Amino acid sequence: MATVKLLTDEEARQSPEAWEVFEDIRATRKSDFVNNFWRALANDPPQLRRVWGQLKQVMTAEGELPPLVREMTYVAVSTANGCSYCVHSHTAAARAKGMTPGQHAELLAVIGLASQTNALATAMQVPVDAAFLAE
Amino acid sequence: MATVKLLTDEEARQSPEAWEVFEDIRATRKSDFVNNFWRALANDPPQLRRVWGQLKQVMTAEGELPPLVREMTYVAVSTANGCSYCVHSHTAAARAKGMTPGQHAELLAVIGLASQTNALATAMQVPVDAAFLAE
Amino acid sequence: MATVKLLTDEEARQSPEAWEVFEDIRATRKSDFVNNFWRALANDPPQLRRVWGQLKQVMTAEGELPPLVREMTYVAVSTANGCSYCVHSHTAAARAKGMTPGQHAELLAVIGLASQTNALATAMQVPVDAAFLAE
Amino acid sequence: MATVKLLTDEEARQSPEAWEVFEDIRATRKSDFVNNFWRALANDPPQLRRVWGQLKQVMTAEGELPPLVREMTYVAVSTANGCSYCVHSHTAAARAKGMTPGQHAELLAVIGLASQTNALATAMQVPVDAAFLAE
Amino acid sequence: MATVKLLTDEEARQSPEAWEVFEDIRATRKSDFVNNFWRALANDPPQLRRVWGQLKQVMTAEGELPPLVREMTYVAVSTANGCSYCVHSHTAAARAKGMTPGQHAELLAVIGLASQTNALATAMQVPVDAAFLAE
Amino acid sequence: MATVKLLTDEEARQSPEAWEVFEDIRATRKSDFVNNFWRALANDPPQLRRVWGQLKQVMTAEGELPPLVREMTYVAVSTANGCSYCVHSHTAAARAKGMTPGQHAELLAVIGLASQTNALATAMQVPVDAAFLAE
Repeated sequence: MATVKLLTDEEARQSPEAWEVFEDIRATRKSDFVNNFWRALANDPPQLRRVWGQLKQVMTAEGELPPLVREMTYVAVSTANGCSYCVHSHTAAARAKGMTPGQHAELLAVIGLASQTNALATAMQVPVDAAFLAE
Repeated sequence: MATVKLLTDEEARQSPEAWEVFEDIRATRKSDFVNNFWRALANDPPQLRRVWGQLKQVMTAEGELPPLVREMTYVAVSTANGCSYCVHSHTAAARAKGMTPGQHAELLAVIGLASQTNALATAMQVPVDAAFLAE
Repeated sequence: MATVKLLTDEEARQSPEAWEVFEDIRATRKSDFVNNFWRALANDPPQLRRVWGQLKQVMTAEGELPPLVREMTYVAVSTANGCSYCVHSHTAAARAKGMTPGQHAELLAVIGLASQTNALATAMQVPVDAAFLAE
Repeated sequence: MATVKLLTDEEARQSPEAWEVFEDIRATRKSDFVNNFWRALANDPPQLRRVWGQLKQVMTAEGELPPLVREMTYVAVSTANGCSYCVHSHTAAARAKGMTPGQHAELLAVIGLASQTNALATAMQVPVDAAFLAE
Repeated sequence: MATVKLLTDEEARQSPEAWEVFEDIRATRKSDFVNNFWRALANDPPQLRRVWGQLKQVMTAEGELPPLVREMTYVAVSTANGCSYCVHSHTAAARAKGMTPGQHAELLAVIGLASQTNALATAMQVPVDAAFLAE
Repeated sequence: MATVKLLTDEEARQSPEAWEVFEDIRATRKSDFVNNFWRALANDPPQLRRVWGQLKQVMTAEGELPPLVREMTYVAVSTANGCSYCVHSHTAAARAKGMTPGQHAELLAVIGLASQTNALATAMQVPVDAAFLAE
């Protein structure tokens, strides 16, 4: 169904570089589950390593935004970009990080509202207020 | 520059419905500033009231997500939707609600990363893992 | 500002194919005005002819949808695609074809609402009802 | 398959607010069918009420645009936003409101053409003509 | 599943205009296979002819870009537009034109990276450098 | 105008990490010019390094796709994502890498056509042919 093969563990193991990433995914998440996105990316081990490296850094490194907030932001972007796989996987990830039904509902409300006002601002071609540009 | 007129206070006052919303915007935000988006929407007072009513509810009502998190989510959606006006206005709003440079930088990192993996998942047409569908 | 040159009449005249299209645009619209979109496309005369030919056919040929409805649909699509030039030019075209302020306001309301429910349906990954699939 | 539960009538009835909306949907549409979108939104009764209230107002209130034109505009926006659920449901709704195969074909032609010229205008970064900005 | 009927050969043959296009598709591709996109478009024979005519011209005419490069560009655009059908069909077409796994991997890398920097440039509202505007 | 400060060389030099990247950009491109995108990203030096590192790898490393093809793909994605800055900067980059007017015209034609058929396939919700799924 995918446009590339989804590599099994057996197949990923053929590339030491890919296998190392799979092992790091498992260690980082403390789970044996490696989801399809990584199995698809594993066809290009350097790309797999590059993307996973970024994701690990951006989503789990110490920082000022709680991991759950980062994950909910990910859901928002994935929705606006219309990526079905990403909406599913990051909603699941947000739940795993503690997102409550109430938080999910509020997230959906913001996403919906923003999409509406985005469209209205674009349709009316509203010029940016000077106040927003002033440094 | 806009495709509709941006109403001045004088003009908005012609419609009691529009004027009431302008006054509520000012009261809610404790500021005299009414930004262009509302001045554009004021051409259709019921639409102005409907959109403002939603925004006030979704963005400021008591809830489980802090107002700043909602505002940063708004920035994320506006970016993905490519709405220049909205990126400017909601980044300014997030700053007004206390977004630090560090939080902004992390927000940008998540938006950028999500956009990359969204594109990769779509390009590879990765099927949703059964684990994400299980109820 | 554009990524290609906007050809003046003088320059367009260098290509008989481009010039013929410019003349047809003027004749069809009963106006001397040739807007920038066509001046940009004129760098590639066969593409200019292909696109204008389609537009003339789709937007002005006898059909079941009134030209104004087609033009308002064009505004809706251009908004959702975030094309600033297109929102401006087709809103102007819709006005030239008689769009009233009331119709414009209703059009904006539908565009805004649809964008909201589109985002919500995507964020919730709502499965298509069997009733909508039944032939 | 959805990222939230689709509530059955039984479940929706637990919330008087949600149930009232379901009853209004049925009364307004003179049909017992409540499609999945509302069953998904029902997890957040105030959001359900807010979105349904808007949709009822925008899509069915007396106005200058015929309901069918509003529905076809909805299809256009849903297509440009890539919302599969919405394309299905609003195409069905447009048919229920009398859209003929000929009107559908013309709608598709406009959507396709607009998407092409949107992309071309963006790729060439065509500057907006002064004539379109003149008030 | 589609919102229009997918015409069988039998049905397409009812319209001489549609049938002629089907025959040209088969002759051009030296294959008996007519994929669903054309079977869907065949409901509107003039639109079928218009779109096929363009595609044949743009994708197969002599030119400066090798057909494979055009096809990979098509995959890139289809991905960014979130068109699942198109990603599948044009990835298959690119493979049929000789795209190697290595080229596919590089194509995916560019698509992913571009999506990331697109989002970052939009989120930061980076002004275009004077150097890029200079003619 | 941007939502973050565009750092001058003076300011970038405050961060050894940012400055190192600026120097690498200059060395890699054999030019003193550092465009605004990097000056904006420099507010977050680790992000600057991460994004530049990727871009250098993906766009300039030895590979199967000529650098110009990668750059034209970048233009295609940037267009579909509606990123004005990116369309300008990568069209300029493609020209710097030797893109001819004829190649540019063909690129635009493919982008426009793909956008049209993407929209049509989505509007008609064409199901993926079994032939495209077969491994």
